[in-house]
Amino acid sequence: MKRILMALLLAGSCFAQPAPDCKPSSLNIPGALYPCVYPDRRVAFRVLAPTAQKVQVRLGGAHDLTRGDDGLWTGTIPPQVIGFHYYTLSIDGAVVSDPATRTFFGSGWDNSALEIPEDDSGYYSAKDVPHGEVRQRWYLSKVTGKWRRCYVYTPPDYDSAKRSRYPVLYLLHGWGENEQGWHSQGHVDLIMDNLIAENKAKPMIIVMDNLNAVKPGEDASLFAARSIIARRSLADVPPPIGAPPRPGTTPAAAPARSPFGANFGAVFTEMLMTDLIPMVERTYRVLPGRENRAMAGLSMGGMQSFVTVLGNLDKFAYLGGFSGSSGGRGGFDPKTSNNGVFADAAAFNKKMKVLFLGIGSVEGPGTKTFSEALTKAGIRNVYFESPGTAHEWLTWRRCFNDFAPRLFR
Amino acid sequence: MKRILMALLLAGSCFAQPAPDCKPSSLNIPGALYPCVYPDRRVAFRVLAPTAQKVQVRLGGAHDLTRGDDGLWTGTIPPQVIGFHYYTLSIDGAVVSDPATRTFFGSGWDNSALEIPEDDSGYYSAKDVPHGEVRQRWYLSKVTGKWRRCYVYTPPDYDSAKRSRYPVLYLLHGWGENEQGWHSQGHVDLIMDNLIAENKAKPMIIVMDNLNAVKPGEDASLFAARSIIARRSLADVPPPIGAPPRPGTTPAAAPARSPFGANFGAVFTEMLMTDLIPMVERTYRVLPGRENRAMAGLSMGGMQSFVTVLGNLDKFAYLGGFSGSSGGRGGFDPKTSNNGVFADAAAFNKKMKVLFLGIGSVEGPGTKTFSEALTKAGIRNVYFESPGTAHEWLTWRRCFNDFAPRLFR
Repeated sequence: MKRILMALLLAGSCFAQPAPDCKPSSLNIPGALYPCVYPDRRVAFRVLAPTAQKVQVRLGGAHDLTRGDDGLWTGTIPPQVIGFHYYTLSIDGAVVSDPATRTFFGSGWDNSALEIPEDDSGYYSAKDVPHGEVRQRWYLSKVTGKWRRCYVYTPPDYDSAKRSRYPVLYLLHGWGENEQGWHSQGHVDLIMDNLIAENKAKPMIIVMDNLNAVKPGEDASLFAARSIIARRSLADVPPPIGAPPRPGTTPAAAPARSPFGANFGAVFTEMLMTDLIPMVERTYRVLPGRENRAMAGLSMGGMQSFVTVLGNLDKFAYLGGFSGSSGGRGGFDPKTSNNGVFADAAAFNKKMKVLFLGIGSVEGPGTKTFSEALTKAGIRNVYFESPGTAHEWLTWRRCFNDFAPRLFR
Repeated sequence: MKRILMALLLAGSCFAQPAPDCKPSSLNIPGALYPCVYPDRRVAFRVLAPTAQKVQVRLGGAHDLTRGDDGLWTGTIPPQVIGFHYYTLSIDGAVVSDPATRTFFGSGWDNSALEIPEDDSGYYSAKDVPHGEVRQRWYLSKVTGKWRRCYVYTPPDYDSAKRSRYPVLYLLHGWGENEQGWHSQGHVDLIMDNLIAENKAKPMIIVMDNLNAVKPGEDASLFAARSIIARRSLADVPPPIGAPPRPGTTPAAAPARSPFGANFGAVFTEMLMTDLIPMVERTYRVLPGRENRAMAGLSMGGMQSFVTVLGNLDKFAYLGGFSGSSGGRGGFDPKTSNNGVFADAAAFNKKMKVLFLGIGSVEGPGTKTFSEALTKAGIRNVYFESPGTAHEWLTWRRCFNDFAPRLFR
């Protein structure tokens, strides 16, 4: 009897603890036990919202949490694919980040996120190997008329090998993210440290900039305005139907320069050529010439990389698109696509040392189809498929881990 | 009549726009018009929460917002003091960050924040001067048994002046913040760039580490667990009154090592001496010796700096406490406080090149009283008071801007 009473007492005192096999997500704030991830990849959430009527976790679909007498809303969602997932809470219709997690800039604002760990995460973990640095660098852009910030990975021996010069990879984030994504969400510095330590990749400089670039006077929030948060709930609530456009605004459906329109990426490319590359080559000990210059990006950053590199083969010899390239947009025609750059396959292959296409297996067949079309047209390319991952950072960590060793050989 | 109709139409189409003299806070996400700040320092907020019963802004006190038919909650709060203010939203009792702002790690989680600008913010703005870098640096700590991350500011000429060596300032954040605070919230890099460009401060290296340091096996969330979010709503909801402590936990009132107890700062100091300083002096081109080493911090980081430096005068010659020092804790006695380090004023003054005490004028008289007590005891010190600011980052930016020029002279 005494033992039963004790068990009841302990059970009662444990009401708010997760099950022992539910491990806090690695992206939680210090001390937060929820969200936690079960071995079968179900995820348990807990949110304090004493007087709310409805609390949901929005991850893929919307998942209702259940209110307890203590004002805590709890729930467990079905197994998720491995990887890094942005998610939000909806609290009586307010879309907010979960205060239990660190936030990560995505979709134009600071989202909460959770990590469903993969079995072998060693390649992006801190190990006892020499570590490089990620350096915050300010520079003034002539093209945009604004101060810009980029981050620059320098390899472990950069400061000690004072006479060495290094090739450079320009590496871009995706839509709604920023120049912090690759080291904050992507752990690119740790991946690179580990590759270099194992002698799998050449030491290189990696420049991570912000995709957003507009001319002075243009709307700087063109990209940001597509954010669900900035557009729907905060900045730009649409006027009532039939009302005239607001003074001083252009109708949302036809911005002056659509981020995905015919001119996609033109200002960024101009900024890269005019401001960023010269600043990098003036500031860091880089090797000159196209064969020491690579560009890659994820999703919209992959699209940007294809636009920039395919239009400037005299400047770049390596190109990577992770879950984003120029494929699938209006069909691929080797004779005419990208201004005919693929028309002479032999000439293209001679210039392009590595053309890399990566994708998560859960994302669909578009990238594979594009790779096959390129191959059929005689264009040498690498197709990399990340097993079991979606359009998220685990796919892109794996893409990078496969791509980086191929560079500058 | 036509003019009136047009005015009405325009007014109607503007319903969701802030007043023209209400400027979006500089900390907003791209494109977000709210929160916005009026010239008289009132602040207007807007939150989409269609089915909520009660929405409040928590900044100082709680301020109710008012629901509109469109599900948007709006409100304007009274004039705020200038500076950087963390704040939260309460949505039907759920304490969350406002999705309209970038988030900043404070109180143990990623808070929303707004900036009430001061008239002359030039000293922490990006100007067309040479810029240094803020470098992310990983290192393995023997004392804590864990990988740690610090950020290292290197001055503009660090890479080009290959033979120069620099003095080092160790600079600490406050309670609930982390190693990103000084450059993210504090703009320390821009302040330093500007001081160096005007020849007001000596080029120096600034090392920004994380205050949290515990021995292997100790509770790593000792500091974090004091977070309102982690403690009350997420990680550690107290068991019902009278219930026994949860298995595997120590009662909250008596942790094994209280962050503010008698041993305050001991593990951090040991980590600093054993791991951080040797790593910095091995990795960067630093000048050796106590006269090239300074330490300062804000709030709890100021307390830590006083504990570390006053216990190790053979290692440091400069000490700064911004809104935090060793004053006011149980009274000051020059003969016995800090193990009697102040007892021989002449000897102390000979060793300590600068003892700096800074505070915001809104914070109360404690620091001034401490400075006067030191002066009365013959201890040379600098008292700096930031006019009209509170316990927040504008006070600390100004403290730093006054402190840095005094170093390494």
